[in-house]
Amino acid sequence: MSEFNVIVMAGGKGERFWPLSRSQWPKQFLTIAGNRSMLQMTVDRLRKLAPLDRIYIVTNVSYRNIVKLQLPELPEENIFLEPVGRDTAACIGLAACKVAVRDPNSELLIVPADHYVDDEQAFVDSIQEGRLVLRATRGIVTLGIKPAYPETGYGYMQVSMRTEDRIFSGYKVERFLEKPNRETAEFFIRQPNYYWNSGMFLWHTDTIERMIARFLPDLHKGLETIRPALGSREETAVIEQVYPRLPAISIDYGVMEKADNIHMIPCDFGWNDVGSWGALDKISERDMYDNVIQGNVINLDTHDCIIHSVGGKLIATLGIENMIIVDTEDITLVCSKYRSQHIKDLIQELKRQKLEAYL
Amino acid sequence: MSEFNVIVMAGGKGERFWPLSRSQWPKQFLTIAGNRSMLQMTVDRLRKLAPLDRIYIVTNVSYRNIVKLQLPELPEENIFLEPVGRDTAACIGLAACKVAVRDPNSELLIVPADHYVDDEQAFVDSIQEGRLVLRATRGIVTLGIKPAYPETGYGYMQVSMRTEDRIFSGYKVERFLEKPNRETAEFFIRQPNYYWNSGMFLWHTDTIERMIARFLPDLHKGLETIRPALGSREETAVIEQVYPRLPAISIDYGVMEKADNIHMIPCDFGWNDVGSWGALDKISERDMYDNVIQGNVINLDTHDCIIHSVGGKLIATLGIENMIIVDTEDITLVCSKYRSQHIKDLIQELKRQKLEAYL
Repeated sequence: MSEFNVIVMAGGKGERFWPLSRSQWPKQFLTIAGNRSMLQMTVDRLRKLAPLDRIYIVTNVSYRNIVKLQLPELPEENIFLEPVGRDTAACIGLAACKVAVRDPNSELLIVPADHYVDDEQAFVDSIQEGRLVLRATRGIVTLGIKPAYPETGYGYMQVSMRTEDRIFSGYKVERFLEKPNRETAEFFIRQPNYYWNSGMFLWHTDTIERMIARFLPDLHKGLETIRPALGSREETAVIEQVYPRLPAISIDYGVMEKADNIHMIPCDFGWNDVGSWGALDKISERDMYDNVIQGNVINLDTHDCIIHSVGGKLIATLGIENMIIVDTEDITLVCSKYRSQHIKDLIQELKRQKLEAYL
Repeated sequence: MSEFNVIVMAGGKGERFWPLSRSQWPKQFLTIAGNRSMLQMTVDRLRKLAPLDRIYIVTNVSYRNIVKLQLPELPEENIFLEPVGRDTAACIGLAACKVAVRDPNSELLIVPADHYVDDEQAFVDSIQEGRLVLRATRGIVTLGIKPAYPETGYGYMQVSMRTEDRIFSGYKVERFLEKPNRETAEFFIRQPNYYWNSGMFLWHTDTIERMIARFLPDLHKGLETIRPALGSREETAVIEQVYPRLPAISIDYGVMEKADNIHMIPCDFGWNDVGSWGALDKISERDMYDNVIQGNVINLDTHDCIIHSVGGKLIATLGIENMIIVDTEDITLVCSKYRSQHIKDLIQELKRQKLEAYL
């Protein structure tokens, strides 16, 4: 039986949680919900599936010390470092190469470091179902989430409902669909066979290598330059030289949308990608006025707000609703809840005004 | 001809400008609009009417050093100190007694320290008109403001439009009206003979004494206990003993509403009592999106907001309108513009929660 390894992608910048997330301390390392960081909660969850030495973290070289700080028991060689971010295809390609040095032909679960899962046991059960399907198909198995509402911030998957296309609990994926507009999202959620793409999937290391060779030949070529150096003293130098020139493309766009033999496990474990401040509404405890509050806050006639104070200052609110207020040591953000997807625009504006110190 | 003296009432707590105004540094000492504090701008304006040694500041004993700091050229004996606030009737009564020691029978202009005046020359002209009326009537002359909109936060005056009731440019006041509700305010502003009560008035020291004796006998009795000590070494001790037990009542309610022989000068000098954060809309420069902004602020899609940062922090706003945001060293306020009159409720809540350090 193949070994089972887990890759946690933890290289993101998470700008949408600005000003709590900063370029030096992005979202996956923040304690946004609960008592542990997103990364810590992700690894806690995964330890129910694999021992810690089979869990690998891929992150940017500048976040190495944060990962070591947050995961002190993780073997240091399980932290894979990217000199720069080159999107998920390169990240997964490099991780697959590195894992293959130890386990040439293992099952690989790929998960982002910064997603929320409410029901850990259901998550574990879904992965175990997925592994059954993976062994039967030797293809790709993705985790799909039954849409609860017409979210426009997620990609979707369309699956076949035909019995003959099912493998155990896995539906055959017919199409990957990019983030829809509102109207399209409303159509999707009325169909029985459209699911949110959670960005989590299972495949074998050799499948990854074969798919990258087939659909992303430039990435394949770069990885083949890196492969002989892995484990040698030149590894870091070679990665530093080759990695920045790899094509930057997502695994969804570069591989998933083109591959066949993909099956999807329909999941229901309270998943959220925590893609913006607005997501806290769905994953956090609310007070009797539907506010999500953390820190030193006093409020009157305040409804449906997210108020997050980490700077220690008192935040006082009066007569407001549907607002996001985030107070840090040097920045206070006040934002409409309907606009939390657009915090990136504020970051662009700060760059334009040469105020990078606030990023 | 009588001497002309000016009393500036500067003892208020100005809670409605919390968190910028604090119990140790209330509104009249803040630089809310322009480059100087409300008190400094008030005195600058009055110096066009009287020399500095004829201008007196009545304030709480705890604010003495702030007044000295902000008005370094003012003779120290022109600062009249109240051990506690006992509303405007006691304040004016005490000030009249003290001025009468120097000028037994002078004209007295009474003004609050924390009002805004846009057109200083028009203000000076109105006071001079008022003095003509005062000399002709030897009664009380008030300054009335033609209402620009149905403000519910001001008191109103109803005047007689009959020619035979006019003295120079002064209309005879028929009634003082307390702060109206919205419907009543809308009726008032449609009438030709309703004016805002600016809280500024002219009378002679002996008129004040006579009116207080007639309408507020307890206050009169208290002041007569203080009067013999004025100028003596016992002055402070006697005031400290007697003043806290004086009746706390406003001059409007205690005297104006009962007196006759009151005339009103209709004024148009861009007056505002700056009674709340919302007032900044009317007296401050706005940007092209109708925001009033001070301090380190970056904004996108932000309209009709008042954003005031004195703590040095960056305030970033996105997709908001009609909000008041005030950022100080230890407090951030986020408040609907329509609720700025209710900041007192937040202060009550802080007291209830024993968080007086934030007041």
